[in-house]
Amino acid sequence: MTRPAVVLFSGGLDSSTCLAIAREEGFAPHALAVRYGQRHAHELRAAERVAAAAGVPLKVVELDLRAIGGSALTGELPVPKDAPPGQGIPVTYVPARNTVLLALALGHAEVLGAQDLYIGVNAIDYSGYPDCRPEFVRAFESLATLATRAGIEGVRYTVHTPLMSLDKAGIIRLGRSLGVDYSITHSCYDPSPDGAACGRCDACQLRARGFREAGVPDPTRYAPGGMPVR
Amino acid sequence: MTRPAVVLFSGGLDSSTCLAIAREEGFAPHALAVRYGQRHAHELRAAERVAAAAGVPLKVVELDLRAIGGSALTGELPVPKDAPPGQGIPVTYVPARNTVLLALALGHAEVLGAQDLYIGVNAIDYSGYPDCRPEFVRAFESLATLATRAGIEGVRYTVHTPLMSLDKAGIIRLGRSLGVDYSITHSCYDPSPDGAACGRCDACQLRARGFREAGVPDPTRYAPGGMPVR
Repeated sequence: MTRPAVVLFSGGLDSSTCLAIAREEGFAPHALAVRYGQRHAHELRAAERVAAAAGVPLKVVELDLRAIGGSALTGELPVPKDAPPGQGIPVTYVPARNTVLLALALGHAEVLGAQDLYIGVNAIDYSGYPDCRPEFVRAFESLATLATRAGIEGVRYTVHTPLMSLDKAGIIRLGRSLGVDYSITHSCYDPSPDGAACGRCDACQLRARGFREAGVPDPTRYAPGGMPVR
Repeated sequence: MTRPAVVLFSGGLDSSTCLAIAREEGFAPHALAVRYGQRHAHELRAAERVAAAAGVPLKVVELDLRAIGGSALTGELPVPKDAPPGQGIPVTYVPARNTVLLALALGHAEVLGAQDLYIGVNAIDYSGYPDCRPEFVRAFESLATLATRAGIEGVRYTVHTPLMSLDKAGIIRLGRSLGVDYSITHSCYDPSPDGAACGRCDACQLRARGFREAGVPDPTRYAPGGMPVR
């Protein structure tokens, strides 16, 4: 029987690629999306589309982080536009986000009997988030063993980060070789009401540059005037 | 200025005692309650009562763990009654629960500028939960530094577990010395619709035994016939 793996999944470019990699690496992926009170509910519709296209089960956990706040992605601060990338930790940082997401994935893994988690973090174009670094991921693996009934019983968890050392263009090339359809994925932090990408937030800029650098046509549907030009 | 501390808080006996200890230890406590899709919504009403009585701010994070499941406390399995305590890990274990709760507390701490977290875990009457052990708590402290912007900037987090080596009677004696009013706290996993305690689940049994062993009248309001007798 194919071993299950939990893939943290947003319907974005990175996690959709992760899902395809988990399957390529021989796992039966179980997608876990977390609605954390973020503005971009369109992400979740993309998650449903991508999971359905891949024929993978999707669980959605509702988590309202607005009580904690502290991030542009949970509603208090404006999403920055046209910012040059790579200037420190941006306001789209969600405090302790990946710790929360991996903890939920760990709970799901324990229930499924899975020992493998996938998260699409990336140390190259990672926008400066502390909880995307390899040392954070290794510390979480150690914690997972101590945190669970399965760990007491001898299970050792592995947190797979297959995108860690790829740049966006490399992710796109890899995903295309695995058949990922990026036209149904969603990355924008601040889409228009019909789900079109703004083209100006950090996520749009990184994504658009990735397609340019990969030499691949950008399938993203942008809002009028939103097509990134840099 | 008094330093803030985040106290994970349910309105139960243990976390209400923790709140009083955090204040006694010189912190300005900020209570954080997480509604994790558990059956006992009465817990939250108790949390509001206890926080109001203590004059402490309370934040409530909504987290629907039912998508993950795997526990009697999230609705799939019946809460066991009249079970002898201490027989392995019970079905009220919520997979990765304290990892999720501490991750949320860490996010709240980072937003508040707090470096101190309190959690009312207990290695003696802990009902066999893996994520109540000291080694789990130390691993979480290590993770917290790596997980946050504050950690990168030099903050070191401390997870305080002042109840770790106390039994329930010891917790009750300490809490009473600090003025905790246990009549407004709630511990039962399966209360009646009006909030009265069942007297028969693990939590009721441990609590009632604590009052007996402390030689203190039990102020809990039990459902008819629910007063534990063992």
